[in-house]
Amino acid sequence: MPEPIMTAAEVGAYLDDVFPQVREGSTIIEAVGPMTATLRLPFMERNLRPGGTLSGPSMMALADYAMYAVILAHIGKVALAVTTNLNINFLRKPEPADIVAEARLLKLGRRLAVGEVTITQAGLDGPVAHVTSTYSIPPRN
Amino acid sequence: MPEPIMTAAEVGAYLDDVFPQVREGSTIIEAVGPMTATLRLPFMERNLRPGGTLSGPSMMALADYAMYAVILAHIGKVALAVTTNLNINFLRKPEPADIVAEARLLKLGRRLAVGEVTITQAGLDGPVAHVTSTYSIPPRN
Amino acid sequence: MPEPIMTAAEVGAYLDDVFPQVREGSTIIEAVGPMTATLRLPFMERNLRPGGTLSGPSMMALADYAMYAVILAHIGKVALAVTTNLNINFLRKPEPADIVAEARLLKLGRRLAVGEVTITQAGLDGPVAHVTSTYSIPPRN
Amino acid sequence: MPEPIMTAAEVGAYLDDVFPQVREGSTIIEAVGPMTATLRLPFMERNLRPGGTLSGPSMMALADYAMYAVILAHIGKVALAVTTNLNINFLRKPEPADIVAEARLLKLGRRLAVGEVTITQAGLDGPVAHVTSTYSIPPRN
Repeated sequence: MPEPIMTAAEVGAYLDDVFPQVREGSTIIEAVGPMTATLRLPFMERNLRPGGTLSGPSMMALADYAMYAVILAHIGKVALAVTTNLNINFLRKPEPADIVAEARLLKLGRRLAVGEVTITQAGLDGPVAHVTSTYSIPPRN
Repeated sequence: MPEPIMTAAEVGAYLDDVFPQVREGSTIIEAVGPMTATLRLPFMERNLRPGGTLSGPSMMALADYAMYAVILAHIGKVALAVTTNLNINFLRKPEPADIVAEARLLKLGRRLAVGEVTITQAGLDGPVAHVTSTYSIPPRN
Repeated sequence: MPEPIMTAAEVGAYLDDVFPQVREGSTIIEAVGPMTATLRLPFMERNLRPGGTLSGPSMMALADYAMYAVILAHIGKVALAVTTNLNINFLRKPEPADIVAEARLLKLGRRLAVGEVTITQAGLDGPVAHVTSTYSIPPRN
Repeated sequence: MPEPIMTAAEVGAYLDDVFPQVREGSTIIEAVGPMTATLRLPFMERNLRPGGTLSGPSMMALADYAMYAVILAHIGKVALAVTTNLNINFLRKPEPADIVAEARLLKLGRRLAVGEVTITQAGLDGPVAHVTSTYSIPPRN
C-alpha cells in the first residue's frame, strides 16, 4: 500500500499557500497515513442552520478538501488535480459542533484517484455523512 | 405537470427569512416554472481558485440551494425538507464570472423529491457541472 | 456540437460483434444524433419482478449500454472505453413493458466522457429512472 | 448496533422464494453479521467481456442484491423495499473469477436504509468496485 510522502503539517502549509480562501483559518489536517487523511472542521456560527444543525454545503466542502489532502499527501504538490465527481449521502442530523472527516483512497491511479470520506461527530451513533469522490490527476513526468 | 404555488420573489423572501446565511445577500432566484427554478450566483472574489477558476464547493452549494428552491416553490413553506443525496459531475473549468443553475424536478413524490441541476456559464460550450439530488420531505397533513 | 460518425445500424452491428452476450438479441439501437442515442429494451419475462415490475439491474445494464453506444457513435470503434462511474435514481415503478433509454453526452473530452440517460416507458407520467455516468476513454492517436 | 434477525441461510431461502430469477441458482449469501452481509458471485461464462474481464452490470446487480440481503437480514421479510439510488465506482479490471461483495449498512432508518458495498476479488491489490446505495423501506406497523 502506498505510503504518504508529505506529513499532515506539510499538506496543511501547502494548502494554506495555494488555497488560502479554503482553509479560512479553520480546517485542521489532523493526520495522514497510508491511503488516509483525517481532517477536522471546528464549529463555526455561519455553518449553523435552522433547527440547530450544520449546513450540507459545509460538509460537502470539507469532504472535497479531505480528498484533495489525501491525494496531495500521496502524490506531492500537484495543485491542478481537480474533482470530477462527488457523491454524498447525508445520514444523520449533525449537532452544532466540530465534524471530523476520514478520507481513504480506494484507488490511486495514474489518471484518476477515487476515495471515500466518512464524516462523523463525537457522540453520534453512526456517521453524519458518507462521500465518494473522484479526482482527475494531470499527467506527471 | 405540477405548477409552482410560490413565485420566485416569494421563494427568495422565504429563504432570506429562514436561511439568511445561505443567501449571503447574493444568490438570485431568477425564475420558477412548472417543475423548474433558475438561480444565479454572481461572481464573488472569495469563490475564486488558483488558475482563475471557481471553487467546486460554491457550485455544490448553489445546486443544493437550487433544489431546495424548486421544491419549496412547488410544495410551499416546508423548512424541514432535507437533502439526502447529492451527486455532482464537474464538466468544464468555469471562468471567474456568474454561474446559473437550472433545477428541474424529475419526481415530486410524497416522501422524496428528485431533481437535476445543470450549471452553466455564458459563453461556454456546454455545462460547467451537472447535479442530481434527492430531498426527503417531512410528512404533511 | 459534435456530430455522430457512425449510424445506429453501424453501432448495433459493432456491438453485436464485440459484445454478443450484451445484446442478447434484444436491445435495439433506435437512433443516434448529435451527442445522443436512443435505445429500446423489449419486455422480457426474465426481467420481471414480484409486484409486476422490472428489475433494477436490467435498467442499470440498459443505461450502461446506452452510454457506451452514444460514445461509440461519436468516437468510433474504441472497444476499450470503460465505465468508471454510474449513478442511478429510480423514480417510478415501471410496468411489465418495453423501456426506452435516451442517452445524452454532457461532455466528450479527450480522457473522459460524461453523460446522462433518461429511462422512460410509454404511458407513464415522468421518467422511470435517471442515470449519470462517466466513461474513461483510452488514449487515441 | 442492530443485530441481524435472520441467518444467511434464511435470507437465501427467502430470496430464492421471492426472486427466483435473481439468484439464478448462483449468488451465494455467505454470511450476515451486525449491519453487514457477504455475498459471492461465482464466475459465469456469460458475465465475461472482451479482454477477459467481467461485465459492469453483473457487478451492479450483485451490489444491489447484497444491499437487499443486508436490509432483509436486519428488518425481516419486507419484499417491497426498493432501491432508490445506486452509485458505483469501477476501480480495477476484474479477472474472470468469483467476485465477493461486502455490504455494510451506514444507516438503517425508519424510511431509508443507506449502505456501501465493496466488491473484491482474491489476489487483487484493492477493491474491484465500490458502491453506495439507498433503499426506501415501506411503512411498517
